[in-house]
Amino acid sequence: MYRSHTNGELRIENINQKVTLSGWMQRSRDLGGMTFVDLRDRYGITQLVFNLDENTDLCMQARKLGREFVIQVEGIVVERSSKNKNIPTGEIEIKIEKLTVLNAAKTPPFIIEDETDGGEEIRAQYRYLDLRRNPVQEKLKLRNKVALETRKYLDFLDFLDVETPYLIKSTPEGARDFVVPSRMNQGEFYALPQSPQTFKQLLMVSGFDRYYQIVKCFRDEDLRADRQPEFTQIDCEMAFVEQEDILQTFEGLIKHLFQAVRGVNFDGAFPRMTYAKAMEKYGSDKPDIRFGMEFVDFTELTQNKGFKVFDDSEVVLAINAQDCSEYTRKQLDELIEWVKRPQIGAKGMIYLKCNSDGTFKSSVDKFYSTKELALWAEKANAKAGDLLFLLSGDLEKTRKQMGELRLHLGNELGLRNPNVFKPLWVLDFPLLEWDEENNRYHAMHHPFTSPKPEDFHLIYTEPGKVRANAYDLAMNGVELGGGSIRIHDRDLQAQMFDLLGFTKDEAQDQFGFLMNAFEYGAPPHGGLAFGLDRLVATMGGSDSIRDYIAFPKNNRGRDVMIDAPSLLSKEQLKELNMNTLS
Amino acid sequence: MYRSHTNGELRIENINQKVTLSGWMQRSRDLGGMTFVDLRDRYGITQLVFNLDENTDLCMQARKLGREFVIQVEGIVVERSSKNKNIPTGEIEIKIEKLTVLNAAKTPPFIIEDETDGGEEIRAQYRYLDLRRNPVQEKLKLRNKVALETRKYLDFLDFLDVETPYLIKSTPEGARDFVVPSRMNQGEFYALPQSPQTFKQLLMVSGFDRYYQIVKCFRDEDLRADRQPEFTQIDCEMAFVEQEDILQTFEGLIKHLFQAVRGVNFDGAFPRMTYAKAMEKYGSDKPDIRFGMEFVDFTELTQNKGFKVFDDSEVVLAINAQDCSEYTRKQLDELIEWVKRPQIGAKGMIYLKCNSDGTFKSSVDKFYSTKELALWAEKANAKAGDLLFLLSGDLEKTRKQMGELRLHLGNELGLRNPNVFKPLWVLDFPLLEWDEENNRYHAMHHPFTSPKPEDFHLIYTEPGKVRANAYDLAMNGVELGGGSIRIHDRDLQAQMFDLLGFTKDEAQDQFGFLMNAFEYGAPPHGGLAFGLDRLVATMGGSDSIRDYIAFPKNNRGRDVMIDAPSLLSKEQLKELNMNTLS
Repeated sequence: MYRSHTNGELRIENINQKVTLSGWMQRSRDLGGMTFVDLRDRYGITQLVFNLDENTDLCMQARKLGREFVIQVEGIVVERSSKNKNIPTGEIEIKIEKLTVLNAAKTPPFIIEDETDGGEEIRAQYRYLDLRRNPVQEKLKLRNKVALETRKYLDFLDFLDVETPYLIKSTPEGARDFVVPSRMNQGEFYALPQSPQTFKQLLMVSGFDRYYQIVKCFRDEDLRADRQPEFTQIDCEMAFVEQEDILQTFEGLIKHLFQAVRGVNFDGAFPRMTYAKAMEKYGSDKPDIRFGMEFVDFTELTQNKGFKVFDDSEVVLAINAQDCSEYTRKQLDELIEWVKRPQIGAKGMIYLKCNSDGTFKSSVDKFYSTKELALWAEKANAKAGDLLFLLSGDLEKTRKQMGELRLHLGNELGLRNPNVFKPLWVLDFPLLEWDEENNRYHAMHHPFTSPKPEDFHLIYTEPGKVRANAYDLAMNGVELGGGSIRIHDRDLQAQMFDLLGFTKDEAQDQFGFLMNAFEYGAPPHGGLAFGLDRLVATMGGSDSIRDYIAFPKNNRGRDVMIDAPSLLSKEQLKELNMNTLS
Repeated sequence: MYRSHTNGELRIENINQKVTLSGWMQRSRDLGGMTFVDLRDRYGITQLVFNLDENTDLCMQARKLGREFVIQVEGIVVERSSKNKNIPTGEIEIKIEKLTVLNAAKTPPFIIEDETDGGEEIRAQYRYLDLRRNPVQEKLKLRNKVALETRKYLDFLDFLDVETPYLIKSTPEGARDFVVPSRMNQGEFYALPQSPQTFKQLLMVSGFDRYYQIVKCFRDEDLRADRQPEFTQIDCEMAFVEQEDILQTFEGLIKHLFQAVRGVNFDGAFPRMTYAKAMEKYGSDKPDIRFGMEFVDFTELTQNKGFKVFDDSEVVLAINAQDCSEYTRKQLDELIEWVKRPQIGAKGMIYLKCNSDGTFKSSVDKFYSTKELALWAEKANAKAGDLLFLLSGDLEKTRKQMGELRLHLGNELGLRNPNVFKPLWVLDFPLLEWDEENNRYHAMHHPFTSPKPEDFHLIYTEPGKVRANAYDLAMNGVELGGGSIRIHDRDLQAQMFDLLGFTKDEAQDQFGFLMNAFEYGAPPHGGLAFGLDRLVATMGGSDSIRDYIAFPKNNRGRDVMIDAPSLLSKEQLKELNMNTLS
């Protein structure tokens, strides 16, 4: 037996008990004739005490312990003379009678404390050491709890956890698949699922009624900072439901999770907004509504006054940065440079200072009179002391730029408190999205999303205007998840594939099994998937999903700890009857 | 709203309520002026009634419904005149006022009832229809429950669910990996994990203390009837434990699962047996101990009496088939043919009938006197009416053959009741196994298993005799799971790789990250993994794991429903910079 208790367990009630503990040597201090050792495990820290006079050998042994040595000790629980109220075991310490080194440790390449001196790369390479740090362990404990509470909630509502296959069929629609060569069927490949979409729909056709799965999904995309080639979804589907049933069910899930895991209670129903409104007010389909700073349309107000930039623009948008009229020239220039960076792409930015003395100062004073500027302020609800920013140009691009600026200002002004959580349902997404590159429409959500019946008449005349029964749950500027009511009619599904440029043969070849299934009694159904990585990061108040993944990959898709991907042996390639082109 | 209640919900208490139901038309019967329809969903069946006189149109509409049509109805709950006590809703029926066809259905290719007329192939192709059948749904509900109860139990014991990566590094040791070409790192490959073994060990090095995961694993093996290229493990690991801690913990898990899911209680501790004893008594490392028929060693008793077959054999083994002395010549011949099949490989079989009149009849009467045959009977504890079977030859092969015969007889004699569950811990597995093909030892469990300290001195002289701290849980002749105490010392791990024929470079290249991790304070640790597919099949009383998988692959590794694997497009191959050799 390696231990009678964990290092987070002993209390004043245990005094005089003989105990055995095991763990890592976190740190030690020699104070006169005493050596104090902090013994650490996942559950906490317990202080060990060695007395030089009473047991010289043992104490000398303790003094030789290095950081991160794994040790086992036996001793008696005693009351501390100077108590530590910051830790649950702080009232006691263990007077040690026996010490065994279970495993020595080299000096770690960085300090294993809450605050570490290790850079990102070295911590990635020694991820198993970084994972010893409390803040990292806490993130994975949070993830564990979110996953388990999700299961409890969904199980309570009769959802069944059904595993869908990982070795499936490649479908070129959407993002790139990771593929897996088949040795038994040479020349053929499996694909790893981008989501269990078609399988969960088949489960609805099979009458499973309510399905969920916490499941790995795979996308071979060029990685961005917050993307991983493998990611985890809370994947759900329900039969005999309308959109409202789904929103209610999963609003309930999110409320349950925040309550059970973070102790946060949401009052009332989550607010809802159409996609159109979200784009208009925030330039984003996942607006952060922890703060206002909504877009105000200045087009009419500002055009035809001789300022060519505005006159030539499809739209002029403004936002109001409250209480920022004291921004210096330098601050303003930095913001203008910020929106002009290629990632944002604005050509320039106009500002209007509503000074606290009631005067105005703008970068376009020569085109607009004070009276006109006052109208700007009025329209943007700006009071003395506020600062307006104006961007102009093409509607879509300007909204996107303004959306980025808004979030940037939100960060700068401390308006995005990570401990405040503001959910928002975004509804009525467009069914289709124009793909400039390939000069065709593609499905905004996926090809199985049902169009809104009332918009269906536009499907061949103005397909871009057709709205879908699709919805996202946004929170704090992050898309936590999304879903849709699915098509369950064979003919409509075939029509969708046609609209997306599939030939009949392509549609049948890739999705024939699903369309066939729809002919044998498919119920109305719909669902939703949450990104678990994103959800736990948001719940943890962090922007980075990587911290919430035990063994993440870097932005080249590499696991630098195990050094994967890597070369295969010639024998392996030969068995697969495969070659890599050189 | 598609329904106010499910089809398993309404009772006599609901009489006179107006309800809306949705589901599948299971069957209908016209009785005089009435039409009765069974409406089915996952939750049950509710009887709908249409009255031809009262509402002719509606009733005629109902009579046109085909099997598996998806419909929605509104009506009033009424008490049945003739009640059906076999179903929970059998006291009521719904007098229908409105009927809507939500989706029509073609006639299914096989009957969707508990007993179906569909063969295995057609059901695999239309798996989504086979999944509608009650017995199939029940199996997946059992699986759902086992998984959830596993999580609850392990969570209660402070195990943390930590997700490990699916895109890892290929290691040629052990079974074949499925590999995934990397587009971003051309010429390099990920591998899909055969198990999260090294990652869970790293989590122990990281101080996670108790880890579990219900996780897909992948092996590219030539498939046998009960193997799938992807399978699911309940994967667990614990730090600061000895073998006994692990056995206690997971014996507790199995007890909990059987109690919670099947209502089966096991009395006392699970029996235990060494690997050596299991091989000696049952010729199997996963003996079915629902019945006796243990091997009796007849070598000494039968040799040197002039029967050359026995004299030339390393071993002569016997088993006693009780009460079988009346077996006919035909039955005996069939059994002899059975053991001579190539899958079993015996050269022949000797029997001894212990007739009920006290006489003996054997197939080797001319070599053995009645007195000698009486000694056989005595040694095998055979009474009048019993039947002995003897096999002989090489020790290992004879044990294996006899083990197969024993299970075959167990089946034939009805000794393997699927509703009786007999767990058995098999302990002290050998560390190494001789690999005839490659003329070297390989790890019986895996290269991370620790040898028993007391056997360690044999490691270079008689490596085959070194036992490991490895254990399996067998039940009813099935290996439910297994595990081991791991090596946590860098030098010992390096020594193991050396013993297994790895060069230093190979070991460092493939498992350097793990050996490095052991240098930074690795705790003693060990673990276990259960095969979830196997576990639920056993709990369900079935031999076939395929029935317990929602979308299984066939024995060519194909998913015939979606037709995977399949060819890739030229564009996909090109992007991966890959070619398949022709």
